[in-house]
Amino acid sequence: MSQPAAKAARRADAQRNAEKILDAAVACLSRNSDASVSEIARAAGVGRVTLYGHFPSREALVEAALTRLLAKGNAVLEGLDLAGDPRSALRELIESSWLLMAQASAVLQAAQAVLPPGRVRTLHEHPEQRVGDLVRRGQSEGVFRVDLPAGWLVSLLHHVMKGAAADAAQGRLDQADAPRFIVDTVLAAYMPVDRG
Amino acid sequence: MSQPAAKAARRADAQRNAEKILDAAVACLSRNSDASVSEIARAAGVGRVTLYGHFPSREALVEAALTRLLAKGNAVLEGLDLAGDPRSALRELIESSWLLMAQASAVLQAAQAVLPPGRVRTLHEHPEQRVGDLVRRGQSEGVFRVDLPAGWLVSLLHHVMKGAAADAAQGRLDQADAPRFIVDTVLAAYMPVDRG
Repeated sequence: MSQPAAKAARRADAQRNAEKILDAAVACLSRNSDASVSEIARAAGVGRVTLYGHFPSREALVEAALTRLLAKGNAVLEGLDLAGDPRSALRELIESSWLLMAQASAVLQAAQAVLPPGRVRTLHEHPEQRVGDLVRRGQSEGVFRVDLPAGWLVSLLHHVMKGAAADAAQGRLDQADAPRFIVDTVLAAYMPVDRG
Repeated sequence: MSQPAAKAARRADAQRNAEKILDAAVACLSRNSDASVSEIARAAGVGRVTLYGHFPSREALVEAALTRLLAKGNAVLEGLDLAGDPRSALRELIESSWLLMAQASAVLQAAQAVLPPGRVRTLHEHPEQRVGDLVRRGQSEGVFRVDLPAGWLVSLLHHVMKGAAADAAQGRLDQADAPRFIVDTVLAAYMPVDRG
């Protein structure tokens, strides 16, 4: 191999390792927000030295894992057309992102333990805002209830998705059922109360 | 003081210390499921040696704190008349126990990290079963939806109460609003779907 080609191969190799480490970090931290660097290295199939070559500390690794998940989540959200009926938009949002948001929330918990609070808030401001916009639009169009504040309705969605993810992880809920259960309960909870 | 009287006074003193330590354990573990023995001793206003005199290990302390909370929760549940309209029963159940159940769920998380899984399950089987009975009765009486399994409806209540407790702890939700928000969303989510 020529010198530049060897260098490019090494770079591609390093890139692949970094990806493997981040995937393993997301998987391990989703299961256990206290997962150690050794556990993550083992799951990625790399040594600790290699891991530390990419991420100098557990904090850096947790932050990179969270950033990666949120970037994925943002890409999914950006790809959705949330402009139609708020109920269909909410349904589509849940179905396309519940697992990702659930993972992010476990990784977020890990991040909250090691990153400064302001940093964590900035990182997940954007997805939370898109959900908030949708809820407020639904309220102003009269299809979502207004007797409860939008902030609580957004939190509710978050709690139900996170709880369903925990149930699925513990084998109490079939992962295939989760999106329907979440949609059917959250949409019912969002309905205006003056039904009759 | 006579010898037996002095002995009784020491016993009363020890009893008070044990109570203080358990109260502090519940408070600290509710805020942070990783709270250390030193933190709990400090919050109780006793030394570590005194604490270890009552609870030989962190595991023992966590288990005692959880047992105490669940006993309180059971006492509250036993005191409720859940025999009437399932909707009113659910409302009363939430209003009287949300904070306690929320604390229990944070302490439970601490317990899950140190106690064998079977032990944790046995400890909180009883309250979960009373809620399950109420949900199933509501379903059979046609006031709660049957298109979703009772197990999910029970989990949903748990997720919403736990989430509200976390929101309140982080100052995102006024503690005084929480019971109403929980009741109004959970009852709406439980309603039969053939409304019109």
